[in-house]
Amino acid sequence: MAKPREFEKPTGVRDFPPALVAKKKWVEQRVDERFRAWGYREVITPALEYFETVGKASAIEEHKLFKLLDSQGRTLVLRPDQTAPIARVVATMMRKESLPLRLCYHGNVFRAQEREAGRNAERFQSGVELVGDDSPEADAEVVALAVEALTACGVENIRVSIGHIGLLDALLKEYLPDPEVARLKDSLGRRNLVEFRERVQALELTESNRERLLSLLTIRGGREALDRLGRHSHTEAVTAAIFHLQAMWDALQDWDVADAVDLDLTLVGSLEYYTGMYFEGYGAKGSYLLSGGRYDQLLEQFDRPSPARGFALKTDQLLMASSGGEDRPERVALVYPRRWRRQACRTASQMRREGKNVAMFVAETGVYPAEDAFDRVEEVSGHDENRSAPDGGDA
Amino acid sequence: MAKPREFEKPTGVRDFPPALVAKKKWVEQRVDERFRAWGYREVITPALEYFETVGKASAIEEHKLFKLLDSQGRTLVLRPDQTAPIARVVATMMRKESLPLRLCYHGNVFRAQEREAGRNAERFQSGVELVGDDSPEADAEVVALAVEALTACGVENIRVSIGHIGLLDALLKEYLPDPEVARLKDSLGRRNLVEFRERVQALELTESNRERLLSLLTIRGGREALDRLGRHSHTEAVTAAIFHLQAMWDALQDWDVADAVDLDLTLVGSLEYYTGMYFEGYGAKGSYLLSGGRYDQLLEQFDRPSPARGFALKTDQLLMASSGGEDRPERVALVYPRRWRRQACRTASQMRREGKNVAMFVAETGVYPAEDAFDRVEEVSGHDENRSAPDGGDA
Repeated sequence: MAKPREFEKPTGVRDFPPALVAKKKWVEQRVDERFRAWGYREVITPALEYFETVGKASAIEEHKLFKLLDSQGRTLVLRPDQTAPIARVVATMMRKESLPLRLCYHGNVFRAQEREAGRNAERFQSGVELVGDDSPEADAEVVALAVEALTACGVENIRVSIGHIGLLDALLKEYLPDPEVARLKDSLGRRNLVEFRERVQALELTESNRERLLSLLTIRGGREALDRLGRHSHTEAVTAAIFHLQAMWDALQDWDVADAVDLDLTLVGSLEYYTGMYFEGYGAKGSYLLSGGRYDQLLEQFDRPSPARGFALKTDQLLMASSGGEDRPERVALVYPRRWRRQACRTASQMRREGKNVAMFVAETGVYPAEDAFDRVEEVSGHDENRSAPDGGDA
Repeated sequence: MAKPREFEKPTGVRDFPPALVAKKKWVEQRVDERFRAWGYREVITPALEYFETVGKASAIEEHKLFKLLDSQGRTLVLRPDQTAPIARVVATMMRKESLPLRLCYHGNVFRAQEREAGRNAERFQSGVELVGDDSPEADAEVVALAVEALTACGVENIRVSIGHIGLLDALLKEYLPDPEVARLKDSLGRRNLVEFRERVQALELTESNRERLLSLLTIRGGREALDRLGRHSHTEAVTAAIFHLQAMWDALQDWDVADAVDLDLTLVGSLEYYTGMYFEGYGAKGSYLLSGGRYDQLLEQFDRPSPARGFALKTDQLLMASSGGEDRPERVALVYPRRWRRQACRTASQMRREGKNVAMFVAETGVYPAEDAFDRVEEVSGHDENRSAPDGGDA
């Protein structure tokens, strides 16, 4: 294998130039303000976790994990998501804090790539987890907060699609045995609706049941779509899930976000830990900006069983969908001759107190400010009583 | 080997609870304001780099690197420092931007541990790199900025010790052949002054040369210590380095920070890329808060030769030495009965606009706010015309 050239970086990772860092900070700041306003407190978890604990709990396919060995030969992973580590924190460091816990984070996650995928191996996410509280209001809260966070970032045409893993499962089980249910969910997980249709066509079913199964693909819309589904008679599991979604929808109406939300029962997400409602958020031109949902079985893997839900904003995508940017302070290049250095230091300090960004240049070095890097070049003309530097002094 | 228990995390990594995250953000914000005021622009580099490029250039001993393989079998490292990646960025993404470049960062670095070391495997750093510009003023700038950043964080009793790798090297070479020079520098690098003394005693030297070598251990103080050293006649390399340090000291006086700075020629740093002046910063009780220095040969490894210098603040230590903390907004728990949910949503939105952090609780769920988690519990008593939720609705 050829050695990488000195300037190369690994496949799928990026350098952020100053302008993009500024935008990332602006977005994270807006999002963070909303998270805190809703009572969420930030935690930081390590980039490295044990494969056997968080690595497995995260439900990311094993070949997508970055693995390494610690000095004792245990397998570590670069955290592939933030939800499983926070579940660990809730069950350990925060074990004595009573539920519900509202926690948030801003950080990176890692996915090893298939060579051809061309997707980011290191991704930035901001998100929340609301642990404890079984109510439909708690589910509605994270959806409403997600919409508010996107709005704060200046995202336009916000749409949220909501599915329900438990409802889908229960609906399929009204007609089919478990192995067939798993196969159909697998098609949906890969967003392969054509395959779903083909698999349903191949099943031995009455024509009316086949039609009702296929109709799952087309149940879209707001609260009225949910109500249509509720009019049929169903198993208890289906009825309970529909009732929960209806109550959640009412709460979304009270948050004035129901108009941005659509039911889509074919949504199942790519993470296996979701158990109930699942949602994805989009901005203008269909940019995919967030996903989240209910995960009621993850916490018990860390020995503190509890209902929970959360979402993760895809910061890298959000940077592109966001209209905003920071108000940049004035950038000044201050050029001074050595004999007026003390005066230049005073001037720079004063300008910095006024909020300007000031870079300094010694005239004698012949190093001059690049034109496009500054808004203004200012030359210091001091007074000889401020003279303090020796003439010359360059090494 | 035993499987890790579900709650374990790898040796040497930490979870940050909300209070510590808040302090970390406060510290990074203060530091960042100073960096920007001095004209530094933030960049973000990836957590993963090639071992053959940044891994080797970083000059961290190989057994302290976290290594892993990418899907093509190349060896990656978790970045062990930020300076080498930024050198790569200067030579690639920023190749067309003219020097000097003032860049800063806030991020984590990784060191694989010897089992018994008990030190952090994941460490947070904030720092700057000033690339280009050979002047003593540029060296003084980063020292003055380091002091200002510590001051902004409320650090007390700030002291900076300054050495000069090139000067030490040249001084030793006035008396000794290269292999002996390397052995003595090695002792200093491990801060083993006793061993340095023993090794000097064992050398064949005139008594006056031996005394002058041993006196390097005791040359401490401000500008006057430097001037004393300059009074002896020296090789050209020594004279040039002393002249450079003197000019730098004059600039530090113009920045009003010279009183916080001491010369200590025995300082050599733990990173092999330093070539010239090297400095360490301390706070009250001798807490070790930063290190930095001049590295004139690192950039040429990335094919853009240039003088450069920078420093890294050890954020984890700074959190303990810093007096500050954020002004925390009021935390309110808002408890409401379902029939007044819409009213509760309005009230919460209003309080959030006023800057309060508001977490919501549905009275019917029986989930009540934990006493110590909120400054205030408020109950919503609405009006029946606002009623919008169905009675019950819990799934």
